[in-house]
Amino acid sequence: MSRGQTRPSLSEAEPPAADESTYVDFRTEPSRYRHWHLELDGAVATLWMDVDEKSGLHPGYELKLNSYDLGVDIELYDAAQRLRFEHPGVRTVVVTSAKDRIFCAGANIRMLARASHPWKVNFCKFTNETRNGIEDACASSGQTWLAALNGTASGGGYELALACEEILLVDDRSSVVSLPELPLLAVLPGTGGLTRLVDKRGVRRDLADRFATRAEGVGGARAVEWGLVDRAVPPHGWTDVVRARAVELANGSSRPSDARPCLLTPLDKERSSEQVVYRHVQADLDRVAGVARITVRGPEANPPAGPEGIAEQGADFWTLAVTRELDDVILDLRTNEGELGTWVLRTEGDAERVLAYDHLLLGHRSDWLANEILAYLKRTLKRLDVTSRSLIALVEPGSCFAGSLLELALSADRSYHLAGVFEDRPSEAGAAAVVVGPANLGPLPMGNGLTRLESRYFGDEDARAAVEKRAGERLVAQEALELGLVTFAPDDIDWDDEVRIGLEERASFSPDALTGLEANVRFVGPETIETKIFGRLTAWQNWIFSRPNAAGQEGALRRYGTGRRPELDRKRV
Amino acid sequence: MSRGQTRPSLSEAEPPAADESTYVDFRTEPSRYRHWHLELDGAVATLWMDVDEKSGLHPGYELKLNSYDLGVDIELYDAAQRLRFEHPGVRTVVVTSAKDRIFCAGANIRMLARASHPWKVNFCKFTNETRNGIEDACASSGQTWLAALNGTASGGGYELALACEEILLVDDRSSVVSLPELPLLAVLPGTGGLTRLVDKRGVRRDLADRFATRAEGVGGARAVEWGLVDRAVPPHGWTDVVRARAVELANGSSRPSDARPCLLTPLDKERSSEQVVYRHVQADLDRVAGVARITVRGPEANPPAGPEGIAEQGADFWTLAVTRELDDVILDLRTNEGELGTWVLRTEGDAERVLAYDHLLLGHRSDWLANEILAYLKRTLKRLDVTSRSLIALVEPGSCFAGSLLELALSADRSYHLAGVFEDRPSEAGAAAVVVGPANLGPLPMGNGLTRLESRYFGDEDARAAVEKRAGERLVAQEALELGLVTFAPDDIDWDDEVRIGLEERASFSPDALTGLEANVRFVGPETIETKIFGRLTAWQNWIFSRPNAAGQEGALRRYGTGRRPELDRKRV
Repeated sequence: MSRGQTRPSLSEAEPPAADESTYVDFRTEPSRYRHWHLELDGAVATLWMDVDEKSGLHPGYELKLNSYDLGVDIELYDAAQRLRFEHPGVRTVVVTSAKDRIFCAGANIRMLARASHPWKVNFCKFTNETRNGIEDACASSGQTWLAALNGTASGGGYELALACEEILLVDDRSSVVSLPELPLLAVLPGTGGLTRLVDKRGVRRDLADRFATRAEGVGGARAVEWGLVDRAVPPHGWTDVVRARAVELANGSSRPSDARPCLLTPLDKERSSEQVVYRHVQADLDRVAGVARITVRGPEANPPAGPEGIAEQGADFWTLAVTRELDDVILDLRTNEGELGTWVLRTEGDAERVLAYDHLLLGHRSDWLANEILAYLKRTLKRLDVTSRSLIALVEPGSCFAGSLLELALSADRSYHLAGVFEDRPSEAGAAAVVVGPANLGPLPMGNGLTRLESRYFGDEDARAAVEKRAGERLVAQEALELGLVTFAPDDIDWDDEVRIGLEERASFSPDALTGLEANVRFVGPETIETKIFGRLTAWQNWIFSRPNAAGQEGALRRYGTGRRPELDRKRV
Repeated sequence: MSRGQTRPSLSEAEPPAADESTYVDFRTEPSRYRHWHLELDGAVATLWMDVDEKSGLHPGYELKLNSYDLGVDIELYDAAQRLRFEHPGVRTVVVTSAKDRIFCAGANIRMLARASHPWKVNFCKFTNETRNGIEDACASSGQTWLAALNGTASGGGYELALACEEILLVDDRSSVVSLPELPLLAVLPGTGGLTRLVDKRGVRRDLADRFATRAEGVGGARAVEWGLVDRAVPPHGWTDVVRARAVELANGSSRPSDARPCLLTPLDKERSSEQVVYRHVQADLDRVAGVARITVRGPEANPPAGPEGIAEQGADFWTLAVTRELDDVILDLRTNEGELGTWVLRTEGDAERVLAYDHLLLGHRSDWLANEILAYLKRTLKRLDVTSRSLIALVEPGSCFAGSLLELALSADRSYHLAGVFEDRPSEAGAAAVVVGPANLGPLPMGNGLTRLESRYFGDEDARAAVEKRAGERLVAQEALELGLVTFAPDDIDWDDEVRIGLEERASFSPDALTGLEANVRFVGPETIETKIFGRLTAWQNWIFSRPNAAGQEGALRRYGTGRRPELDRKRV
């Protein structure tokens, strides 16, 4: 099928795609999984990894030994999301393998060797986001992931385990954990392995160095001693120990025991080469300008009365619905539309209603579902933050950049706020305005742990305090500009030209340099495991991935499995 | 001249070097400066930048408009060092330009366009270290740098200003500050510009974005408003305002007013293609193995009695002498010996004497010179931390890895500690041992703000406490291994084979991947402006520098100045 056409799901029986330009759909559901099986048993869910060798997303490789490609990880992401929303009673998620003696061999090497540089980078970004989400399940929702390594976990397989709160490894004298990327492939572990070894698990730097240069891995007591796993368990007691530990972890959780599941019903999505249309979100794709114009619509009705109303509406509840659509459109455009380098973010609707939905959710954070929805919105906004596209927000009459939706403007690299109204387009809503609300003051932090307002006014407490004092007020262009909430405030006469020139200028710059610029100035101040993974580790990995020693014709990625050693330039950079 | 031969200095009248393999010497002194002039006036020193167009380090470019290459920055580094040691009375350093209407145009573009990737990266690293050192002069020594931009400061020129504590810009309707790298060259500012804009100066992210995409720069009141400079000063009052502010800054300093200068006498250095030999440091270059073996010798005599004794000995005082030699050998090998990918670090001498020197310095930190020496040692160890070479420490009988010299072993990626003695090489010193001392517990932090012990035991307070409790004890191999201070503890029978195999294995790996691994696991925990510059920013810059959009035949770096626009791949990565 040709690029950009609607494709309902990955799992339909279609001929394998010829190349990376084939459209990738991120929507799936358990009944269509090819690589995972979800088993439920009270408070413990088990996610069995059982990759179908023949069902790679692209031709040219087989997913042997539970190795994975983007298609496998799309299912993992879906499972992680559904475990949080559809299974309120699940307190521990055991992730293990249905295959004998192998947990997971990591990202498929042949897939990586044939993949383009942009594909590899985007693939790693999504897998990283999914693993960060796994950590968020424990941190935000009391749903703890336990890695039960019933066989060897190498590369991305071990990195998946590192994203879990605890790691059990079978002690059968052959199963190991390993990060063989450096010795075998001349690249780095690409999904946070190095950062989580030292920063999360406190593995000593020289042991991390030994481990990451040791293709054969480490098992048994030594893996425990080095801090690579939490426990090595003899095979005869394996099942019981895993089960007992899962139950033990479940007992400490705050998840509800009798809540009504929130079913993530299929997304209503129309996809063509010109548009992506959901109920509340729409993206118009301008291939000539290299721009995607994303419009987010506010709620059409007032929010329900309380948590019961949220549960009643479920996936139709506006905040959840709009978050799912935003999540999907980000993933779709990132993966399928690499040449649309600028995203224009717009909103339409009633600011008061957006604030009312925020108020409902924030007033009931102790309710599991309200909490889940906020955490999902938080993760989705973080996904926007690490997106390698220039983000430009337009604040116009009739827009609703208020509270949670103001975060879209605050995540943008630049924002334009119309001073007044369009003379030729009367709007009942009056002059364009933004509104700061409680959602901007804490519940939706960036990866650096700061709110977007804290990041924006880093080093200038007074300016931030001045903004926070105006919370709840409709701030028109001149006010928003003076407060530093927006970048530009042209009037009707200048608006079209200023926006057009800004977009054209952006499109004239090197996309690579823009990616580097944005990755640096978006994340001010403190760093966390997340920002280190996306900033430090990803940048090094990107560099290494584009070096001849890895990706060249004689490089390690291409030579892997050929029996021929790579030819390495010995010069240190 | 051929590679590796001794070359006393850059400033000798020799034909220009044909290529980057020409030996670069980092030693210079004010009388040989070609590009800077140091003017002293009481507590205020003025460093005039006056780059000699014709004196580039390599042929093929002219250093117009105070643009710089490595040779210019070597002099700047020398000046910064001498200002601290030879000018105890200097409390403010004004950095300005001797040229009309231009402060500094940044790194020379033609030099960058013709430079190899390793050269560019190493050049940026050194310039970054010098700028970090400028900030350290204020933070550690009360010597404040004031940037007096008497004309336009663009690119690296503005980044030099950003490294100063304050920036004054002449408000003459033409002078601006700018970071034109992205729009003109498709790369990022390479010396901390983006990080310092947002993290140090608190420039709002969207203004940082506007600024860094605006080739024409920002001047006058707007530069103040955006936080890019501290003050815009009309031309007629320029000299007086700069002087007055310099004196004002000087008044707040703790620098002594009547101390004896510590002259940095010429380093005693013999350089051949096989060896670099100083008084206390020696490097043996094994080109076959790709290894440099660096031996650091402890003090030959006991330390003098007090601060007067340190001042009396001056540059001959062991800690200062050994630090200068270590600094020079790091710079020499990094720049001139790219294929020696592993550095083996050894020490020889009396551990008690090393501790006695540490004791003297730490006991008199309020003495300006003791303080300067410690700060210099701190900076030099940081230089080692960011060196893209695998660092392997060998702890053998007769070694003196104690206190400040133990930091060398703690900076290593791996360490081998001989269990016992070499049977065939009797040593009076007895079994090899390491000693933790006060120098390991605070005064020599890494760039992340933690001591090397805190970094080593990150996440394991108990292990660190156990080590600190043993301070002052000679710890033999088994003890050091159990405490986690060393990586391996082979005995005499295994030693040679284990070390040899370890070095051979290291040499078999991709140098690029090792650089990425080391850059990730060496810096655990918190991040600072320094670690962000070396980790996040440098890695992105390295990636961008190796992308076709910048460095390709049709890329922006090559097309610059040709009148032809670069051809850019529009795909976002």
